[in-house]
Amino acid sequence: MKEVQMEFEEQIEQLKDYLAAQDIILFRERFLELHVYEQSQVYLSLSDNERLDLYNFLSPKEMADMFEVLEEEEESVEKYLEEMNPQYAADMLSEMYRDNAVDMLNQLEPATIKKYLSLMPSEDADGIKKLLNYEDDTAGSIMTTEYVSIFANQTIKSAMAILKKKAPEAETIYYVYVVELNRKLVGVISLRDLIVHEDDEMISDIMGDRLVYVNVNDDQRDVARTMQDYDFLAIPVVDNEERLIGIITIDDIIDVINDEAASDYSGLAGVDVDEKSENPFVVASKRLPWLIILLFLGIGTSTLISNYEEMISEASILAVFISLITGTAGNAGTQSLAVAVRKLADSDDNKRSFRKLILSEIASGLITGVVTGVTIFLAVGLWQQNYILGLVIGIAMLAAITIANLAGSFIPILMERIGFDPAVASGPFITTLTDLTSVLIYFNIAALFMNYLV
Amino acid sequence: MKEVQMEFEEQIEQLKDYLAAQDIILFRERFLELHVYEQSQVYLSLSDNERLDLYNFLSPKEMADMFEVLEEEEESVEKYLEEMNPQYAADMLSEMYRDNAVDMLNQLEPATIKKYLSLMPSEDADGIKKLLNYEDDTAGSIMTTEYVSIFANQTIKSAMAILKKKAPEAETIYYVYVVELNRKLVGVISLRDLIVHEDDEMISDIMGDRLVYVNVNDDQRDVARTMQDYDFLAIPVVDNEERLIGIITIDDIIDVINDEAASDYSGLAGVDVDEKSENPFVVASKRLPWLIILLFLGIGTSTLISNYEEMISEASILAVFISLITGTAGNAGTQSLAVAVRKLADSDDNKRSFRKLILSEIASGLITGVVTGVTIFLAVGLWQQNYILGLVIGIAMLAAITIANLAGSFIPILMERIGFDPAVASGPFITTLTDLTSVLIYFNIAALFMNYLV
Repeated sequence: MKEVQMEFEEQIEQLKDYLAAQDIILFRERFLELHVYEQSQVYLSLSDNERLDLYNFLSPKEMADMFEVLEEEEESVEKYLEEMNPQYAADMLSEMYRDNAVDMLNQLEPATIKKYLSLMPSEDADGIKKLLNYEDDTAGSIMTTEYVSIFANQTIKSAMAILKKKAPEAETIYYVYVVELNRKLVGVISLRDLIVHEDDEMISDIMGDRLVYVNVNDDQRDVARTMQDYDFLAIPVVDNEERLIGIITIDDIIDVINDEAASDYSGLAGVDVDEKSENPFVVASKRLPWLIILLFLGIGTSTLISNYEEMISEASILAVFISLITGTAGNAGTQSLAVAVRKLADSDDNKRSFRKLILSEIASGLITGVVTGVTIFLAVGLWQQNYILGLVIGIAMLAAITIANLAGSFIPILMERIGFDPAVASGPFITTLTDLTSVLIYFNIAALFMNYLV
Repeated sequence: MKEVQMEFEEQIEQLKDYLAAQDIILFRERFLELHVYEQSQVYLSLSDNERLDLYNFLSPKEMADMFEVLEEEEESVEKYLEEMNPQYAADMLSEMYRDNAVDMLNQLEPATIKKYLSLMPSEDADGIKKLLNYEDDTAGSIMTTEYVSIFANQTIKSAMAILKKKAPEAETIYYVYVVELNRKLVGVISLRDLIVHEDDEMISDIMGDRLVYVNVNDDQRDVARTMQDYDFLAIPVVDNEERLIGIITIDDIIDVINDEAASDYSGLAGVDVDEKSENPFVVASKRLPWLIILLFLGIGTSTLISNYEEMISEASILAVFISLITGTAGNAGTQSLAVAVRKLADSDDNKRSFRKLILSEIASGLITGVVTGVTIFLAVGLWQQNYILGLVIGIAMLAAITIANLAGSFIPILMERIGFDPAVASGPFITTLTDLTSVLIYFNIAALFMNYLV
């Protein structure tokens, strides 16, 4: 790929030269032979003025093909549309696959959306309006209406004729959907099946009648799981009357998988990991809210420690081990949290498995706690030549780790139960919380042994 | 989907009844009308004895179709193969798509692999042997050799005839690859293109000659990124002489995306988040190594604090804020780490962007540090009515956060530079490391103000 890459840089420069020279013929010839992804890379590298030229060089349809693959920051989409002639932008949006046009429109102000819809052919505007109404993160919000449907009483030959006609505008032609007159979904046939069977066979004889579909209101994560389980390239979407209203293609599912992974990762880190901005002020403003909330939770821990200040001034050695106990418990809690979040995301299970998960975390917390506790007992005993101190640290460690494991699994489960995404139970939140419980445990155990520690 | 689910539970029970009654006809009729994913769910719910019956009821080819989608723990695959008649297992493996057969074989001992290969037709055994040799995580390790290739001087009609013949065994027929006699890849045509063009057109006239392919030794993550950029359903794999040797299909890429997400998430949490076992001893044994390593790193921090024990016994209030400073710096470091890991994974950029990333993290560290520092200065000042103490905590916080941001971005970059996966720079490692630096900063700043603190 490296040579291709080098070559590509040169090609971009050449295309810019054609643009500058207003050489529309050569520019179109070279630009349109690129893959649309490569076209989008050229587009993103253009200056404001070069883009304005481009809009004169390409048709709305050609621009639409390129915009299908353009993944950009929200601000940019608005900027691009604004710099186009409004009619050109509207034409481009109506030439795009509906799901992608809807994705772009969803990033604009309601008034702007209305403006573009009013400039479109009413058929396209109506189709897009319907899709705009589906809630975020549902099957409806990521489906497209550009599929190929046929009837069961057709021959393969006539189905292939329909497919051939619809192919240029359908988002996928690798599945065709068999419907009744009222659009009720009754079967699915893959293009592979159409090709291997004979021309005069009837659709009804070869179609799979075991239907796998999703409802338009299903959560997009469930749709992603179903498509991965079945290895589908597209899945039909039906309304509550089981009428076919759209399909979801694998490229949109990959976006869902990536978004969910980023959101899980963000949750664990307490930060939006897909920060687009490189401006340190913007970056800081996005990270600070979490940090400040956690800071005040941390002040709670400090307040707690201040209650034991007298103990510390009597036995200052106690202060030496605060961060060791809170840190280790925090590490254990983070492990437990991450495992719980993944398990919750993977299973559509019931209450029983929640209890099992918590019991299993308590048990493994006890085991890791015992091993870690004995280790630190020996380490501190040897280092400080004070096995009573070692015992205090060891027992506190055992208890703190067990509680941290419990918190790490219980909190995401609780969040799922009350209807939140368990992945937003962030790692920093758990560690800050377990700081509090660890300190409480540590000083209470130390208090029992104070006579031996002073 | 809920009703389908309920129904499915009943169907499984019915199938088990047929198995028990040795009713091969009815069992096969009902079982084979299921989607292979559903078949695999039935299979996983069977008892050991029921599975042994199943092997008598289904042909190796039918079993192979089901095993294509079976995703199971490593131990299980071995168990399943072992309980089959070796010849049956070998036949099944040779009926599977090569990439999936190789995935399964890779989980076995070398001697066992050899046994199965010796029982296969030599053509299949040779093909599989070649694939077994590719290194983990390369394009070669996830590619399959079952693609459809044609020559440029054919008509569409003859290409469709080849496709029709090859369709039953090819892993995808949605792209056909155009090669020269020496297998050099010269073009790609999608089935969509074949269908919309006329029968008598020549392949050479309609094939895309702008080739996008990967080398067999490319990293699978790069392959995944390329396929997502181009929205491909399959991508050709070539050797160093640009000869076509395989293809990678989108289902394998989704597996790569999921695995990489799990591994990033695991890194951040310092634990393998896809723990399969529910046995607390197994779970604990997997989590303990990290915890114990971090424990000893934490003892380093404790040793450091013990150097300041005298200061603490003079001003025990200092102990109250240790966990607040280490905790907040740890949170900031985790944020910075997570962002850096994602940025490194997303970009195939060069050194310049590394420096930019680090400078940007230092800048945003300073800004978040100033805001957090001022906040804690005011909070501690008001709470303890001691603004000198507030100043100490505030300045320490500012410095500790800046250093934590630097560490959070620098460490993954360093790991990438020396050839490690930056995602294994775990969150707990960063927080434990920043504990150390934070304590050092805190007590050195406090030392400057000791006269005012006692």
